[in-house]
Amino acid sequence: MISTPALVAPSAGAPFEARTVEHRDLRDDDVLIDIKFAGICHSDIHQVREEWGGAIFPMVPGHEIAGVVSAVGDGVTRYKVGDRVGVGCMVDSCGECEYCKDGEEQFCAKGAVMTYNGRGYDDEATKGGYAQQVVVSERFAVRIPEGIDLDVAAPLLCAGITTYNPLKRWGAGPGKKVAVVGLGGLGHMGVKFAAALGAEVTVLSRTLGKQEDARAFGASDHRATADEQTFEDLKGSFDLILNTVSANLPVDAYLSLLKPLGALVNVGAPSDPDTFAAFSLIGGSKVMAGSNIGGIAQTQEMLDFAAEHGIGASIETISADEVDAAYERVVAGDVRYRFVIDTATINPQS
Amino acid sequence: MISTPALVAPSAGAPFEARTVEHRDLRDDDVLIDIKFAGICHSDIHQVREEWGGAIFPMVPGHEIAGVVSAVGDGVTRYKVGDRVGVGCMVDSCGECEYCKDGEEQFCAKGAVMTYNGRGYDDEATKGGYAQQVVVSERFAVRIPEGIDLDVAAPLLCAGITTYNPLKRWGAGPGKKVAVVGLGGLGHMGVKFAAALGAEVTVLSRTLGKQEDARAFGASDHRATADEQTFEDLKGSFDLILNTVSANLPVDAYLSLLKPLGALVNVGAPSDPDTFAAFSLIGGSKVMAGSNIGGIAQTQEMLDFAAEHGIGASIETISADEVDAAYERVVAGDVRYRFVIDTATINPQS
Repeated sequence: MISTPALVAPSAGAPFEARTVEHRDLRDDDVLIDIKFAGICHSDIHQVREEWGGAIFPMVPGHEIAGVVSAVGDGVTRYKVGDRVGVGCMVDSCGECEYCKDGEEQFCAKGAVMTYNGRGYDDEATKGGYAQQVVVSERFAVRIPEGIDLDVAAPLLCAGITTYNPLKRWGAGPGKKVAVVGLGGLGHMGVKFAAALGAEVTVLSRTLGKQEDARAFGASDHRATADEQTFEDLKGSFDLILNTVSANLPVDAYLSLLKPLGALVNVGAPSDPDTFAAFSLIGGSKVMAGSNIGGIAQTQEMLDFAAEHGIGASIETISADEVDAAYERVVAGDVRYRFVIDTATINPQS
Repeated sequence: MISTPALVAPSAGAPFEARTVEHRDLRDDDVLIDIKFAGICHSDIHQVREEWGGAIFPMVPGHEIAGVVSAVGDGVTRYKVGDRVGVGCMVDSCGECEYCKDGEEQFCAKGAVMTYNGRGYDDEATKGGYAQQVVVSERFAVRIPEGIDLDVAAPLLCAGITTYNPLKRWGAGPGKKVAVVGLGGLGHMGVKFAAALGAEVTVLSRTLGKQEDARAFGASDHRATADEQTFEDLKGSFDLILNTVSANLPVDAYLSLLKPLGALVNVGAPSDPDTFAAFSLIGGSKVMAGSNIGGIAQTQEMLDFAAEHGIGASIETISADEVDAAYERVVAGDVRYRFVIDTATINPQS
């Protein structure tokens, strides 16, 4: 077994503890990754607090992992020691179903194995990126190009692909007007990618408090949704609206901002049901969609695109003993724009 | 002016009266059509009863028009006297906006002119197909191929394009599993087109009362939605669900029937809001969309496709004095599957 320092959530909602945890010895197709940085995703908090039910404790969260390969299994062909790699939300899938074959492993018919708070096909609980090492199949590691620092790369593994995937699927590009709702961890990546893809980007957030940041990320306009006039002014304006907010929105009002044939894509999931009028979709043959990360090949494409365009996450780097406090700040929306843990600071007392 | 016998709704909800109405003299680009058959669309009833507000009376409804060209304006190039033609939901658009240029005239930025209960750009109230003649620009007439009889062609101009458009946009074809919800005027066309496009078609309706018809139209399966087991059995089954029902459905339950990346497309519009959970869309990156007829070029494509595949509407032909009663039967869902008026029976008493 491979032992590594990690931040462990011992039970639902309890403070993190620095402990030593164990990973399997390398299988033929495994790589051992020395983790340098791990992003904090809001979904980590939901799972550590068991707000989504059925959590597995003790838990080592983290699915925004950036590091360096430090050992490889006998059959590994893609990576060698010293390679810069990342791991996102998945660490295994069946590889044989129609979705795996299509590069959409997140929809694997057998069920993709989540990076943490899941169980591998060997029934072992998976452990994530708040640690100094992780063992994964090379099929679920992606290469981090030299052009991106590892700290700003880490959040790309979830926040990056979660926004890049729907922007690509729904046609963000030159000549398209894209609105990004919410300027947080997901939203700020959505703005950067949409702008780099060539779209004209508007940020829609409750207030204009982050207006300068929005411009710096590539937005050409920023409107306050707390102002009802915004919905009059922007009626029928957008080809695509990427909604990154987890609160319930007035769906019909947002659909009215779309051009005919436009799409409102949700990556933020409110806990209460949403309500909409069928005519809001029918009149202009409009679309409302959801989006759930992206496949491994597209995650690699996203990283390559990010490197090419000089895009990383905007981050605040913290040490291991600041994670509990950082969770409170994420819940309060007080982070610009993603916390990243410097995993070298994880120091078990034992 | 051109005078023609027509069925006129004098005011909201009043019985039809056979009267003589007038159309403009032919402009350079106009054709005069001798209407042979006009389909009855449920939306005719909503408008005649002023259920959608703002109706223009006296009203001559009808946007499922099939007939023969009997005169042409001086500049007409596409049609000659004797040609078999149809007219659908629109009779004019600006021709210059991005949507008109893209062949999506229904989304014209200036506002497409509806075939009836609308106003032309000359401010004249438009009059529809429950009549013996109509005058329209050749740009909004489509050719009815020789392979389709005019009576079964008439409903294609609305019910046909309304179902063909979303089936094409959302990829119905070989290797795809398509469900059609509701087997009425729209649904029966959806089944015929989806099957002809090569998809494997399942009909979902409250009961199995029309099972034999569904098979005849091309469905390979038929399930009752009143049976909750249906939703267990068919979970994750469909690439595309075409919902033609105007009642509120349990949206989350229908979304659960989609495969990952699948689409639920609504062409039936319930009057009350729908409710859904964001996770129902996010989990499998699913789509919910609306669809509103289709452009003129695609309407022609649809008619050519129908002729090639021997597809027409399944109809019950009625005379002018049966229209009021037919409306009651449409509202009661008692029609297999579209009423078509033989316009030769319209006989003003004067």
